[in-house]
Amino acid sequence: MISKLIKKIQKTDAPIVVGLDPNLSFVPESIQKKAFEEFGETLEGAAEAIWQFNKRIVDATYDLIPAVKPQIAMYEQFGIPGLQAFKKTVDYCHEKDLLVIGDVKRGDIGSTSASYAKAHIGTIKVGNSTFKPFDEDFATVNPYLGTDGIKPFTDVCAENDRGIFVLVKTSNPSSGEFQDRIIDGRPLYEWVAEKVNEWGEASMDGDYSNVGCVVGATYPEMGAVLRKLMPKAYILVPGYGAQGGKGKDLVNFFNKDGLGAIVNSSRGIIAAWKKEEYAKYTEEHFEEASRAAVEDMKKDIREALN
Amino acid sequence: MISKLIKKIQKTDAPIVVGLDPNLSFVPESIQKKAFEEFGETLEGAAEAIWQFNKRIVDATYDLIPAVKPQIAMYEQFGIPGLQAFKKTVDYCHEKDLLVIGDVKRGDIGSTSASYAKAHIGTIKVGNSTFKPFDEDFATVNPYLGTDGIKPFTDVCAENDRGIFVLVKTSNPSSGEFQDRIIDGRPLYEWVAEKVNEWGEASMDGDYSNVGCVVGATYPEMGAVLRKLMPKAYILVPGYGAQGGKGKDLVNFFNKDGLGAIVNSSRGIIAAWKKEEYAKYTEEHFEEASRAAVEDMKKDIREALN
Repeated sequence: MISKLIKKIQKTDAPIVVGLDPNLSFVPESIQKKAFEEFGETLEGAAEAIWQFNKRIVDATYDLIPAVKPQIAMYEQFGIPGLQAFKKTVDYCHEKDLLVIGDVKRGDIGSTSASYAKAHIGTIKVGNSTFKPFDEDFATVNPYLGTDGIKPFTDVCAENDRGIFVLVKTSNPSSGEFQDRIIDGRPLYEWVAEKVNEWGEASMDGDYSNVGCVVGATYPEMGAVLRKLMPKAYILVPGYGAQGGKGKDLVNFFNKDGLGAIVNSSRGIIAAWKKEEYAKYTEEHFEEASRAAVEDMKKDIREALN
Repeated sequence: MISKLIKKIQKTDAPIVVGLDPNLSFVPESIQKKAFEEFGETLEGAAEAIWQFNKRIVDATYDLIPAVKPQIAMYEQFGIPGLQAFKKTVDYCHEKDLLVIGDVKRGDIGSTSASYAKAHIGTIKVGNSTFKPFDEDFATVNPYLGTDGIKPFTDVCAENDRGIFVLVKTSNPSSGEFQDRIIDGRPLYEWVAEKVNEWGEASMDGDYSNVGCVVGATYPEMGAVLRKLMPKAYILVPGYGAQGGKGKDLVNFFNKDGLGAIVNSSRGIIAAWKKEEYAKYTEEHFEEASRAAVEDMKKDIREALN
């Protein structure tokens, strides 16, 4: 699966992923109004609003990008209807030939992780039929439980040609509280990185492994160290834009082949219409603001990499 | 919320929680057959089967226990229909006056954790209406992202009188890979435990805090240390029974007041009918096997505590 992602990155010349994390506050009034007229001020109404919002952003940007990353929490907060909107979004992005990174950050003991793996990147048998419950191409995974919590995911990666990104160093301000603590002379995130290499060995797909990792754009120095430490792992880099990461900070996350990283922006793209620099597109044409923000992000990263 | 749980534990004389983690292999043929006849061999059919299975176990045990702990992965693996069965199970357990610990192990950066907290133990506004998306009483939470990933949950605990259990030392074989690593002379799980104390200070509810923790029954020596280290935190103890923890191992997790811990058993209760010692109840009356297994577990723990 990682080779498929790389091909799409090369084709679009865009090592970026659009985070489809739709809070209602990002959704223009007119879309909310229409959804609420049809479904009431209900979870169904909210789910319809975020789905219509997503659809217009995807329609306006799919030719520019290789992948999207819906953050499932933003859908889960609207209960079952929200998760139905998540699934509709995944399916629609596949129709548009986009790869989907499910930002689900799941992880549990072995038998339970196996169920999460089936749910998100695998298949499940019911009687003689087989289903793909959520059908993402990649999922993000939390490493706190160690190898037996990860292995069910890597097994599914191997069986189904899917991928995962393991949290190594997250983008948030307090990520260092545990992740930066020193163990035998090295921070915890480096020990996790060593395991990412180990977990990824059995899932090589071309020059890279289907087992990638997450390292926040907000920590570029650590990104440089981790880039070298995990030469075969693709790095999913959140924290660009709204969280403070900038284009020049991103160079550290790439290999010399210009590959090895894919940078996520969520609010910076999907809520671009609310920012002064894109206000000219107006609320009504919010998806054009998103398209312009994607083009600017591509330019920012291209310039930083050259 | 923790004081409510304690009252129910005292009333039932049962510091135990039944893990409603229904794999299809635990569900008797007759229930599966009926569900598949109605909904086909589909995700809907599987979801109906696990819901009917849960209902009969809850009906047969609710008067003996204070709480249940559905593991959401077991529902998520059946996609949207599975999550609908999860929600139905939560609601039905509330009707039966059981408290519900959602074993969701969520955790992310601050703004995202806020959405998970709303989804599982909080409320969300849509227009002028307010909803409780999944409406659990407690949720389990992963600490890898540090304080700003936990705070949205503790905020909701304070606002809505709900609780969380933070993973400290998990029950699985490879939990030590990261959790046991030594940082400044102490294992990582102790540093997480210190934070659990800190996070719990603002959420005291009687003698205990609404911020509890998870420590596996499979690590009783560590349980003893952690019990002392977090005197105000209720410990949710998985790993009893199928994972190898025994009654005598559990003493370490309790305080001298006989409180401070609640022990989970999943397979040991819900799949009791498949074990030789409960075979006499037969597959047809599987819920009576579950009831007998709950009574045996209560006796095992009571004897260990006396």
